[in-house]
Amino acid sequence: MAQSIRTQAELANELGLSRMTVQRALAGYQGVSEATRKRVMEAAQNHGYRPNAAARSIRTGKFGNVALLGSAEEGPGYLPRLLLSGAQQVAQENDICVMVSEHSREEFETQDFEPRVLSQWSTDGILINNQQEISDRLFEQVKAYKLPAVWLNVKLKANCVRPDDMDAGHRAATMLMDAGHKHIGYISHHGERHYSIEDRGEGVAKAVTDAGLKLTFNKHYDGFSICLGMENVMQWMDSPNRPTAVVCYEQQEAVSVYAAAMKLGLRIPEDLSIVSFGSSPCRIATGLPISTLVVPFEQVGRAAMAMLLDWIDTGEEENEPVALPFEYDEAGSIVPPVDA
Amino acid sequence: MAQSIRTQAELANELGLSRMTVQRALAGYQGVSEATRKRVMEAAQNHGYRPNAAARSIRTGKFGNVALLGSAEEGPGYLPRLLLSGAQQVAQENDICVMVSEHSREEFETQDFEPRVLSQWSTDGILINNQQEISDRLFEQVKAYKLPAVWLNVKLKANCVRPDDMDAGHRAATMLMDAGHKHIGYISHHGERHYSIEDRGEGVAKAVTDAGLKLTFNKHYDGFSICLGMENVMQWMDSPNRPTAVVCYEQQEAVSVYAAAMKLGLRIPEDLSIVSFGSSPCRIATGLPISTLVVPFEQVGRAAMAMLLDWIDTGEEENEPVALPFEYDEAGSIVPPVDA
Repeated sequence: MAQSIRTQAELANELGLSRMTVQRALAGYQGVSEATRKRVMEAAQNHGYRPNAAARSIRTGKFGNVALLGSAEEGPGYLPRLLLSGAQQVAQENDICVMVSEHSREEFETQDFEPRVLSQWSTDGILINNQQEISDRLFEQVKAYKLPAVWLNVKLKANCVRPDDMDAGHRAATMLMDAGHKHIGYISHHGERHYSIEDRGEGVAKAVTDAGLKLTFNKHYDGFSICLGMENVMQWMDSPNRPTAVVCYEQQEAVSVYAAAMKLGLRIPEDLSIVSFGSSPCRIATGLPISTLVVPFEQVGRAAMAMLLDWIDTGEEENEPVALPFEYDEAGSIVPPVDA
Repeated sequence: MAQSIRTQAELANELGLSRMTVQRALAGYQGVSEATRKRVMEAAQNHGYRPNAAARSIRTGKFGNVALLGSAEEGPGYLPRLLLSGAQQVAQENDICVMVSEHSREEFETQDFEPRVLSQWSTDGILINNQQEISDRLFEQVKAYKLPAVWLNVKLKANCVRPDDMDAGHRAATMLMDAGHKHIGYISHHGERHYSIEDRGEGVAKAVTDAGLKLTFNKHYDGFSICLGMENVMQWMDSPNRPTAVVCYEQQEAVSVYAAAMKLGLRIPEDLSIVSFGSSPCRIATGLPISTLVVPFEQVGRAAMAMLLDWIDTGEEENEPVALPFEYDEAGSIVPPVDA
């Protein structure tokens, strides 16, 4: 490897050129011959010279990066790939870099926890992805750093972006009732309680109640250890009081319901309509034709980063919370009930 | 918000202390009274002062961060959450930050594409997550930057870390044959061809051939548009020549096979043993008891970051490629065939 060069001055010295010529050549300004520009670029590459972001950040007082600070735990730290992508796209459009920093629950709960992203990395702002439980301390600590900070997938009075789960629940039930269903159930299952479980369920229940009907059942299976599974689902499906349509909290429930229906000889959608929520369309993720309200994670990432960059720019510390609508992937699993 | 302070000198001035005292207090060195230390820390927090990483990086010539450079496309840019976590954990254990930078196929294919992560961010090294097609140009370009660079999930002669798909295929078939199966099929489906499709299949075929048997079938459904789905699977499953055991490329195939079996009145595992590969256990992701060889993404992330940091430290440019074994989640879907 050729000798490493760290500054434009060193590069100019090496080439026997003035520092201004080197600077102009690297920046692509006019007033430098093509031959010189080529010579400078080649030398820069040979010597591993890269424009010095550190020096630039000292000049501007901004660091040109934001951090995604998250929980390293499976539940609270759930970080959908599309959310990261959406945030990263908007950052990139604005010439900003994204750093990722994840920490264990223990670390978050330590009295003097100070993630490097806050104390040392010198970042212009943070997105916070810690969905399960925001301790008052963490909240106050972030405030104390006086850094712009936007929260992901939580419900707060300001500075947060999340999917609109209640609206999605309402829409799911409404689609089923529009098709003629009067007996609708909701099933959910999750490792840790997340507000979306209740919100989707409340949306479903509200739509049903507003139509003068009653939710047939609302079943919640707690914890990954009591894994939902087909056998569980068959218990309630193989009864005369079973609903004609079921709303599923996530793909897992939808797959269990589908397989249980097949085993019991029920046809989907003729004997049982089904609609699921999901981080991706069930049809794509499983090969089963289950209509899905898809969580708009990419949009959440984009909107959160946009809010953060706006705050960094304007200093506006109180941004209206944003709740974004789900997308709908129609896969044909909702039809009128047999007796309609 | 209190007036913002950017340097230790400003902070010292504000407090009427010497700069050395401020520096010692912030660094937690001895020789500063607890009262002074407290006063400095409080003032630092009130004024939003943070130790200046930019200044430090100019001193040391290292930037204290590495970048994860990836494709923004759904297929090639597939970035499992656990891979990112694993890489991030190892970086953090070494006091290094991770920046994420994703780019479209168009960007990667532009003649003079120079991601900021290479040209401007000033990073100490990169992990590259662009799994589908590494153009010679990208490869040469990364080399030209003279930056340590480790490739994820691709097969190269050096500097790459990936799961050992062929070994996993071999293990899957061997488990089925150990249970007594002689008629084994392999089905796969993917949006874009990835080496893992062939490698898992080759591993299965090799194990079967080595045992003096013949693979009953090797079906590949191409593209997300011709979505696998239960109906497709039923066509081959409802025949007298169907295998007694099937190996599935991913969770999607496993779910389709499971549901098709239920619809045809076949019992799993009694009438059909099934084993899947997957980025997480099928049992957890779907609620169906399907035994799964789980891709060790967290380990891949950890190993790749360890290789990269080692390279940054030692300057060693030729690191042996690493292939990591899958983990096994036993869910009871492999039993001896009925006629065994």
